[in-house]
Amino acid sequence: MAIRYPGGRRYSPPEQPKNKVPKKDYSFSNRGKTLEDELDESNAFYLANKIAVIHKKPVPVQVVKVDYPSRSAAVIREAYFKTPSTTDYNGIYNGRHIDFDAKETGIATSFPLKNIHAHQVEHMKSVTEQGGTAFLIVKFTVSGRYFAVPFDLVERAWERMESGGRKSIPLAELEEEAVEFKAGYLPRLDYLKAVSRFGIS
Amino acid sequence: MAIRYPGGRRYSPPEQPKNKVPKKDYSFSNRGKTLEDELDESNAFYLANKIAVIHKKPVPVQVVKVDYPSRSAAVIREAYFKTPSTTDYNGIYNGRHIDFDAKETGIATSFPLKNIHAHQVEHMKSVTEQGGTAFLIVKFTVSGRYFAVPFDLVERAWERMESGGRKSIPLAELEEEAVEFKAGYLPRLDYLKAVSRFGIS
Repeated sequence: MAIRYPGGRRYSPPEQPKNKVPKKDYSFSNRGKTLEDELDESNAFYLANKIAVIHKKPVPVQVVKVDYPSRSAAVIREAYFKTPSTTDYNGIYNGRHIDFDAKETGIATSFPLKNIHAHQVEHMKSVTEQGGTAFLIVKFTVSGRYFAVPFDLVERAWERMESGGRKSIPLAELEEEAVEFKAGYLPRLDYLKAVSRFGIS
Repeated sequence: MAIRYPGGRRYSPPEQPKNKVPKKDYSFSNRGKTLEDELDESNAFYLANKIAVIHKKPVPVQVVKVDYPSRSAAVIREAYFKTPSTTDYNGIYNGRHIDFDAKETGIATSFPLKNIHAHQVEHMKSVTEQGGTAFLIVKFTVSGRYFAVPFDLVERAWERMESGGRKSIPLAELEEEAVEFKAGYLPRLDYLKAVSRFGIS
């Protein structure tokens, strides 16, 4: 189901236009799943195995009108999507507060910063200042490559853009400064292992 | 606006029946605000003053039908409230992962455990096992008293109920083992100060 923000912009994934078949992923292990599905599976694995407690937040909705048909569930008859004011995922891993957003891009050679909002950058900065671990998970849908991108790299790229520089993080910078990881079986995406290598690799 | 779960049960606060004026709070500083409003204000204060980053999660909604009128925002035309699978609030305070739910009760002498769900108790247990701080904020609307209730007390009361014991936490137990705090001005509810006294007072 296509979920849209007010104004009609699609919720996720931003690069796949309506009525087009999503670009295919040619790796064997990675056919047809969205990044959100993969993260949901991974988080369920982490929870069941007592590795971490991480949940996706519900999509924020402004409810305007609700009907109460007798003997059945309340039905929302008018509501609007709101722009999220924080990131989509958070939780706890080994005593560490974890906070991140997940983005897919169909661009092959860079991650466009238009995929994130100024208030999300601000939120990740606040979390970092409180001692939490904030980052992005970026999936390149064409190549099937995944990166855990620490907030300090996101922040530098964001400030460079605001100073008139490029509006994306080049793949070469991610290869150099982010932590790449591969899709597996259980968990599907062991992104917390990648995150625990921040500042090391 | 009254928000309802499937089945028609009100989202919050559970004890105030529809079409009745909420019971009045006779303390000077506490006229007419819901606990959710008070916590929102407090969290905005914490955020602005770089004390903590704590947000309420959006109410989970299952969207079934969306209209896209041209030149205007997408309108949700059919959706249903889902039961939350976690607590309503979480975030980070001084490097500590914070996870809690907030409940008002119109009962004067105890906190009825029907205000919380089994899966919320399960969630708070998982968070505690990962090293996070899980608790309830309970407001007695008749007396205007507030308690921060550590998860271990919630868990003991829950297990007592499941073994056939009483279905509530008596006020006397809260006075003994939870941390009471008062409404103030800035922040409205300094509940994190109360939480930092868990295990001390």
